[in-house]
Amino acid sequence: MTLQDPVVCVVGATGMVGSQLLDLIDERNFPIGELRLLSSSKSAGKVIPFRGESLTVRQLDASAFEGADLVFFAATGALSRKFAPLAVAAGAVVLDKSGSWRLENNVPLVVPEINADQLQNHNGIIAVPNCSVTGFAMAIDAINKVTKVLDVVVTTFQSASGAGLPGIEQLANGADAPVFPGTLLGNVLPQCETFLDNGFTTEEEKMLYETRKILGDDQLKVTMTCTRVPVEVGHSSAMLLTTSEPITLEQARDAMRNYPGIDLLDDTRNSVYPTPESVRGEDHVQVGRLRLDHDGKRLWMWQVTDNLRKGAALNSIQIAEQLLAVQLSR
Amino acid sequence: MTLQDPVVCVVGATGMVGSQLLDLIDERNFPIGELRLLSSSKSAGKVIPFRGESLTVRQLDASAFEGADLVFFAATGALSRKFAPLAVAAGAVVLDKSGSWRLENNVPLVVPEINADQLQNHNGIIAVPNCSVTGFAMAIDAINKVTKVLDVVVTTFQSASGAGLPGIEQLANGADAPVFPGTLLGNVLPQCETFLDNGFTTEEEKMLYETRKILGDDQLKVTMTCTRVPVEVGHSSAMLLTTSEPITLEQARDAMRNYPGIDLLDDTRNSVYPTPESVRGEDHVQVGRLRLDHDGKRLWMWQVTDNLRKGAALNSIQIAEQLLAVQLSR
Repeated sequence: MTLQDPVVCVVGATGMVGSQLLDLIDERNFPIGELRLLSSSKSAGKVIPFRGESLTVRQLDASAFEGADLVFFAATGALSRKFAPLAVAAGAVVLDKSGSWRLENNVPLVVPEINADQLQNHNGIIAVPNCSVTGFAMAIDAINKVTKVLDVVVTTFQSASGAGLPGIEQLANGADAPVFPGTLLGNVLPQCETFLDNGFTTEEEKMLYETRKILGDDQLKVTMTCTRVPVEVGHSSAMLLTTSEPITLEQARDAMRNYPGIDLLDDTRNSVYPTPESVRGEDHVQVGRLRLDHDGKRLWMWQVTDNLRKGAALNSIQIAEQLLAVQLSR
Repeated sequence: MTLQDPVVCVVGATGMVGSQLLDLIDERNFPIGELRLLSSSKSAGKVIPFRGESLTVRQLDASAFEGADLVFFAATGALSRKFAPLAVAAGAVVLDKSGSWRLENNVPLVVPEINADQLQNHNGIIAVPNCSVTGFAMAIDAINKVTKVLDVVVTTFQSASGAGLPGIEQLANGADAPVFPGTLLGNVLPQCETFLDNGFTTEEEKMLYETRKILGDDQLKVTMTCTRVPVEVGHSSAMLLTTSEPITLEQARDAMRNYPGIDLLDDTRNSVYPTPESVRGEDHVQVGRLRLDHDGKRLWMWQVTDNLRKGAALNSIQIAEQLLAVQLSR
């Protein structure tokens, strides 16, 4: 990799995550030698302003990765399945936001606050977790530093942008080719993605298997209901944790205060707690409403993450920053 | 009570639950000798059409209950605290939808499908459960008929109309005197009602203590997060049940099919499950997404209730119908 001025490709540059990636590359002064914006044929030819220049989006093909150092995939799983190996073959490191590679052996699944060490060892593809998993895993990891989390019951409230621009469009006005299986505006849909034979959805299973992999804990129990709510941005979740040793409320609050990337918003007397509105545009995961159940045993928390930023683009950029730092420190 | 033609008062006749009560009295041919519509001074004087007549809403005062047989309270807790005893003193039976009397001794808290027997013994006031509790308790009761439910973890998605017309108005356009502690449109608020010292809200504690009373089970564990979502009508909840004996999915589905007042909507392959949209205007509680957790031990379900109907007005009318039936059968 060219460390100081990497050649960077963004696949899916016209989507919501792609566009957030470009904002963050600029905002965080991510070093760029050359920036190539790539997309499916549908969006090719679009012109996108970036740092005073006008960049034309180019149709993704096998030759697009020549000389590339870093390729962000913020597109469909199918596109990633096909093209990520080509990018690796061309010598690039792939940061993949699709769900295609996350559970593969030899593919690190990384939230830098939790397991940046996994970046030492990869075969060219590094996976970025599902947008509902990142903040969830961080909140568990924070408690793990006090006492081991054994079991989590979680119900999510996922926003329309979790399904990209088509999701936002369907929320706003219904859409010709709906991405959600029913009306979302004024409604709640207890379905994210596709149902499996066991009655859970593919999205729900990510909360179990991705979290286990990120935390390196195959014994962790997670059971969940994932829903879609009429919100544009921000995935919320109500989490109930069972820990191996009792934890006090003050220990739990300190765990959140001390955790990089988590903001504690927990002053219920003044109605201070995270909401999709409070988290939108924020880099940090927000946690609040910490309380013990009526037996004083299990710990409740309310966790909200900007699914486009920490849930997707920001986490990808942070991984890229870590990769550069590691290379530079060698 | 005059059994065939009772004199009926509706306190809070201009509110959302009051208006739903009038619709249901008509729809169900509830016997009426005389109907008196009562309200606070703010709404007094309004004219409401009912069965071809125009009824003028009268300001609630102590004399309003003279000769009344049945008084529905669908108004604030404060109004109910003050006036319900006066209605009883005047010889009426009170059906109270406010939260003022539910946990009092000698006040039955009734969901007819569960504990109609409690109606045999009252001192004039019968309480109607909180709108998020009714469908919740019914779903638990259905499973109790197979094996005892020991523990429930529940996260609710409550609609704006749970806070009456002002809630709907705030959802639609923001309001001068907001009933919710923040923006609801496009947002999720993890707060219903008021916070207690233990970190739960008053609304959340209803899920524990009212459910225990209705089911007559002081050992039942319930722990919960209650939220407000940008939905007009329909309270949803994700429920995770631990039972004393293992239950199969087919037993659980049969329990729902066999339970009066519950409709099973559970065909996930065709995206058939309850939503606020599917339940609006329906008398029955809807349950779906039945599945066992990945260990095959705990039972998930998704339960949605029309909070204005079964969660409020319908349950009140059903209690009144039971009262009349009991009296008539004596």
